[in-house]
Amino acid sequence: MTGKFITLEGGEGSGKTTNLIFIKHWLEAHDIDVVVTREPGGTPIAEKLREVLLTTKNSEQIATDTELLLMFAARAQHVAQVIKPAIEAGKWVLCSRFTDSTYAYQGGGRGVSAERIATLESWTHGDFQPDVTLLLDLPVDIGMQRARDRAELDRIEQETLSFFERVRQSFLQRGQQHNRYQVIDAQQPLAQVQAQLTALLEQLV
Amino acid sequence: MTGKFITLEGGEGSGKTTNLIFIKHWLEAHDIDVVVTREPGGTPIAEKLREVLLTTKNSEQIATDTELLLMFAARAQHVAQVIKPAIEAGKWVLCSRFTDSTYAYQGGGRGVSAERIATLESWTHGDFQPDVTLLLDLPVDIGMQRARDRAELDRIEQETLSFFERVRQSFLQRGQQHNRYQVIDAQQPLAQVQAQLTALLEQLV
Repeated sequence: MTGKFITLEGGEGSGKTTNLIFIKHWLEAHDIDVVVTREPGGTPIAEKLREVLLTTKNSEQIATDTELLLMFAARAQHVAQVIKPAIEAGKWVLCSRFTDSTYAYQGGGRGVSAERIATLESWTHGDFQPDVTLLLDLPVDIGMQRARDRAELDRIEQETLSFFERVRQSFLQRGQQHNRYQVIDAQQPLAQVQAQLTALLEQLV
Repeated sequence: MTGKFITLEGGEGSGKTTNLIFIKHWLEAHDIDVVVTREPGGTPIAEKLREVLLTTKNSEQIATDTELLLMFAARAQHVAQVIKPAIEAGKWVLCSRFTDSTYAYQGGGRGVSAERIATLESWTHGDFQPDVTLLLDLPVDIGMQRARDRAELDRIEQETLSFFERVRQSFLQRGQQHNRYQVIDAQQPLAQVQAQLTALLEQLV
């Protein structure tokens, strides 16, 4: 039996990490082997690329095309080394961010056409797609406040509010186009978010 | 007036660096502003990617697709930050290796289809191509002996002889398909190679 590939998406401060851990524990309590991972990153080489992508200390600006190719380079490595082998071994993979984030940030945020992103998506992982994508949706100002309270902002998190508004709308729009999306209102109290996640997980297992 | 984009291609030990410097001096003696650069690399970020690509110390294997996307990520940055601005400012750019090396090493060497490489080429630099490509051609055993005498071999240089034979044939084949190629017999004494380069340069300026 092959495993399932579940991705968590959403803006800064939407609760991806907290809920990733909640889902992991829930699945383990139901005797499912779980691999928790994240993008960009998830393997030693992909984490090196993450550093190049997110550091605020580059001595030059990363060109938009470079950023996109790097995101997909890290993803190719992550899929080949971690995600596919785990799923083929019957494990479930929980991944914080995947290609939907590229459409939202580089597409919605930076204005790269969906067509250009789709070319790299299809080149890199063709028909391999998440089984379920959980979108934690939250108004931008609330999410950014949470993110700022938590840690220093990385290169991408230092963008403007209107950038993140475009990111949010782009996620919501993709949510309507793809059946694998489950949109969750992340403004609710955590207990309610997690009750909703539990209901979704019960349907999945 | 815009400048020219000249690339040097060829296997290990074919004399790319020596002849790059020769060409640079020749052009400067003819009052031409020259930028000398190399791939993968050529900008601080692209050099970081070069390190990931060429180190023999990665704790995991780089997947072939990752390698290709990384090559083009470094190239996108190099073209945007260095090559195009220099040419637009009227300078000549001399670059050791460019996309032809990707066709030779990842295509000929590793067996990636030319079609898959062409997708990334067209995504990354579309119609932007070298004006002239100088291919320094040399039998593989002679080139490898020169490279071994010179320094420790990097990750790609540690491939097998048959890998480099496929690389050489792939370069020669592309040389027949593209008018911008000038194939130079790098087995000749250096003085003869450079007399040939001088004749080519005189036609160019």
